[in-house]
Amino acid sequence: MQTDSQKPSRKLRGGGGARRAERTAYVNEFSRFIERKIPNFEILNEEALEIIEYNAETVLEEIGVKFVDNPDAIVRWKEAGADVQGETVKIPRGLARNLCATAPSKIKQHARNPDRNVEIGGNSLVLAPVYGPPFVRDTSGGRRYATIADFENFVKLGYMSKWLHHSGGTVCEPTDIAVNKRHLDMIYAHMSFSDKPFMGSVTEPSRAQDSVDMCKILFGESFVEKNSVMISLININSPLVFDSVMMGALEVYARNNQACIVSPFIVGGAMSPVTVAGTLTQVLAEALAGIAYSQLIRKGAPVVFGAFVTSIDMNSGAPTFGTPEASKILSGAGQLARRLGLPFRSGGALCGSKLPDAQAAYESTNTLSAGLLGGVNFMLHSCGWLEGGLVSSFEKFVMDADQLGVLHSIAAGVDISQNGLALDAIREVGPGGHYLGCEHTQNNFKDSFWKSNIADYKPFETWSEEGGNDTVLFASKRVEYLLSNYSKPHLEPSIDEALLDFIKRKKESQPDKLY
Amino acid sequence: MQTDSQKPSRKLRGGGGARRAERTAYVNEFSRFIERKIPNFEILNEEALEIIEYNAETVLEEIGVKFVDNPDAIVRWKEAGADVQGETVKIPRGLARNLCATAPSKIKQHARNPDRNVEIGGNSLVLAPVYGPPFVRDTSGGRRYATIADFENFVKLGYMSKWLHHSGGTVCEPTDIAVNKRHLDMIYAHMSFSDKPFMGSVTEPSRAQDSVDMCKILFGESFVEKNSVMISLININSPLVFDSVMMGALEVYARNNQACIVSPFIVGGAMSPVTVAGTLTQVLAEALAGIAYSQLIRKGAPVVFGAFVTSIDMNSGAPTFGTPEASKILSGAGQLARRLGLPFRSGGALCGSKLPDAQAAYESTNTLSAGLLGGVNFMLHSCGWLEGGLVSSFEKFVMDADQLGVLHSIAAGVDISQNGLALDAIREVGPGGHYLGCEHTQNNFKDSFWKSNIADYKPFETWSEEGGNDTVLFASKRVEYLLSNYSKPHLEPSIDEALLDFIKRKKESQPDKLY
Repeated sequence: MQTDSQKPSRKLRGGGGARRAERTAYVNEFSRFIERKIPNFEILNEEALEIIEYNAETVLEEIGVKFVDNPDAIVRWKEAGADVQGETVKIPRGLARNLCATAPSKIKQHARNPDRNVEIGGNSLVLAPVYGPPFVRDTSGGRRYATIADFENFVKLGYMSKWLHHSGGTVCEPTDIAVNKRHLDMIYAHMSFSDKPFMGSVTEPSRAQDSVDMCKILFGESFVEKNSVMISLININSPLVFDSVMMGALEVYARNNQACIVSPFIVGGAMSPVTVAGTLTQVLAEALAGIAYSQLIRKGAPVVFGAFVTSIDMNSGAPTFGTPEASKILSGAGQLARRLGLPFRSGGALCGSKLPDAQAAYESTNTLSAGLLGGVNFMLHSCGWLEGGLVSSFEKFVMDADQLGVLHSIAAGVDISQNGLALDAIREVGPGGHYLGCEHTQNNFKDSFWKSNIADYKPFETWSEEGGNDTVLFASKRVEYLLSNYSKPHLEPSIDEALLDFIKRKKESQPDKLY
Repeated sequence: MQTDSQKPSRKLRGGGGARRAERTAYVNEFSRFIERKIPNFEILNEEALEIIEYNAETVLEEIGVKFVDNPDAIVRWKEAGADVQGETVKIPRGLARNLCATAPSKIKQHARNPDRNVEIGGNSLVLAPVYGPPFVRDTSGGRRYATIADFENFVKLGYMSKWLHHSGGTVCEPTDIAVNKRHLDMIYAHMSFSDKPFMGSVTEPSRAQDSVDMCKILFGESFVEKNSVMISLININSPLVFDSVMMGALEVYARNNQACIVSPFIVGGAMSPVTVAGTLTQVLAEALAGIAYSQLIRKGAPVVFGAFVTSIDMNSGAPTFGTPEASKILSGAGQLARRLGLPFRSGGALCGSKLPDAQAAYESTNTLSAGLLGGVNFMLHSCGWLEGGLVSSFEKFVMDADQLGVLHSIAAGVDISQNGLALDAIREVGPGGHYLGCEHTQNNFKDSFWKSNIADYKPFETWSEEGGNDTVLFASKRVEYLLSNYSKPHLEPSIDEALLDFIKRKKESQPDKLY
């Protein structure tokens, strides 16, 4: 595990008084983004991959995609060689794939703290929190509309999470701020309450531009021109429609050399065929068209192949999460992305449950595990997602974030150094002995096992005497503990002032809007 | 998915009255054991495998294993060519591996209902319930010592589970029956309350013999001589010790051509080195020695390479479950077993949590997922395990059993038939359309998505009005529903009488014992 813990070793911590002090003094720990040392799990064989790739090209060529309310896009596609009829763009076999070839295979996203920079692509896995919910939930306050105060608290929790590499984007919708102004406060929260990389606004092309402009204040204009300092989420209106708002944001970011995730957003059976292979065909067609379009805006624009796919409960029509069909689609989509040589986004701690209970954890773990093994490079929603994405849960944020440690450890693979092989320890202990006291154990126990900071490891009797509580309560205490121990990372006051001034001017320049 | 559901199709079920009747009439559904159509996830590369295999032979040759209180075993090993010193058996490089070569690569275990026969080995996965807990827990009764009534209820739930292929063994310890007699009631419960395959007793060689004798009544003497009708769990006293009770049971079963799982039972860091590769070395050495010994008893005796490994919390000394280290060991052990050409046992819905809460589900899913992808052929503890194996939980039994459906669906891989590829559906719907009403969806929706029978898929408002309950309550209702709808599979009255007579005579022939 690549950890740059600043925690002093046990030996250095001294006696009882020091231990008590240490228990209350919070130390911010941080792990670098994951570089997998394990193989990917690949569910499709060569034949299946080739058929799906062939069929995706058939979809683009015969059925085509729609770029709506976007005459410039239509012109661009015509010039690129597509067969355009009204807003429908039919893309000749091979054209989209050829256009995708200029997109980089790996993206370096810069953070204001260079130690927090991430690489997206190859064998990397970058973990980012939940994105989008209008509601929040916690044990004390229940379910309620999210506010900017909630938003800031999630950014703080993300900053303090050892296993989270990214501050994310809309960790919840700050519904107490006008729709046309809240992106300014969201971006500012990421910039000031954290030093991890973050995402830009996509709800209007002008808001994408504001995001770029704020980054120019934070990072400097010339730095932003040369480097990706944001990654932003461009959803496709599946099936096969690219709307002008999302494409407008994509155009702003691509022009400014900022990274985008081009992501079919699919409830399988409603927005794609009810079968895995059919959905993969559509996912590939949509990703090819969207990514190709980004390269028409700017050759070499950094872009990620995204796949957000859930299944559906055919009785109630509710989207369902953590299902095996979604896992299979994730695995197959990863293979298709790698064959295109593109970074891949999917996964997350997705669930449909209304509470952070066992259903939530079963569903979330199914998708976290599929994402790790399926070669995901950027995992949005890796913590905090609840109720099908309607709710950001404070407790689930820290519960999931804790589980992200599991992904780090599995990804590190197996150490087969002499120390890892431990043959001398087996010799020392011998038949019927025990390892707790042996030298090898003493030398290695601190780093050998991932340890949860939420799960209860106490004996039944102790646990019972202390109230017999469940995970949610332990998580609730963890949230409280973290927020009460938060301290802001340093931000140059002149930059802070410039950002606040930019926001003030932007807000004053327009009336509040509800959309 | 290989399902022989007897549920009539929706179209055949008629109107409102029929639907209401159908809601209360329980239909027992059953799925055949899993035959994977997906690749295994393999964490070790060739170099790592070869080093671990070499070191395991070094352990056997240099350090050796102990067969305690078992002079016959010592003689057998001497005759086989081992270097024996007292109870220590040093096995020359290659000998154990050569002996293992006569063990079959696949085991067919017969059930009294031939439709429930299972194959253990190759690409199969057979799912069996929790084994061993002295306590049970449910929402109404809390945590309490298990009784034979609890035992019978777990057997009933296993019989009614669509995704469980096996009735298991000690689903809980019936502590209200004398230790030397309870195995008779346990075996009888599996034989009479279920028609799925089951496990034999291992707590005394004589109890193993009773298990065989009862099977001869159920299946007929000559059938049992020629076929495996039981699989039994032989734990190794790690590190490197084979006790006479377990070996005595192994000897009975091997002589009678009944299958055994030879399984290191390891809390990593206490009973094996604290590192993954070191533990794998010890696991392989122990499995090689134990399986080789089974072949010294009877060449060709059916035996499974087992690996039950947990990690440990070094602060409290508590074993921990669902951890990444355990998942890596599972994956590596599966590779080592397959290179020996032997069936592999590991995994389960393992957890340390005291309640069937989010911690339990995170931990359980981590191991269920690792077990599916790690090529496990026989998965004990696949449902019902709670509190580090101290407790069999009724709610968790049905919650986990529900999740086993996820494993079935993933294992089935991706259908790339014309219907699976669904290109015509994409053509029919086109850009901006929706799939819910299209012909392909109508034809396929019933079998396309795995559906939970526990998870709540209702809208937030409905769920909230109905009490805003969590998974445990839904599971509790499911337990109640299943048990109230249970009906016994037919058992020939003459066989039933003969079994009851055997049990009566055995019980009367000896006083109650507490061990």
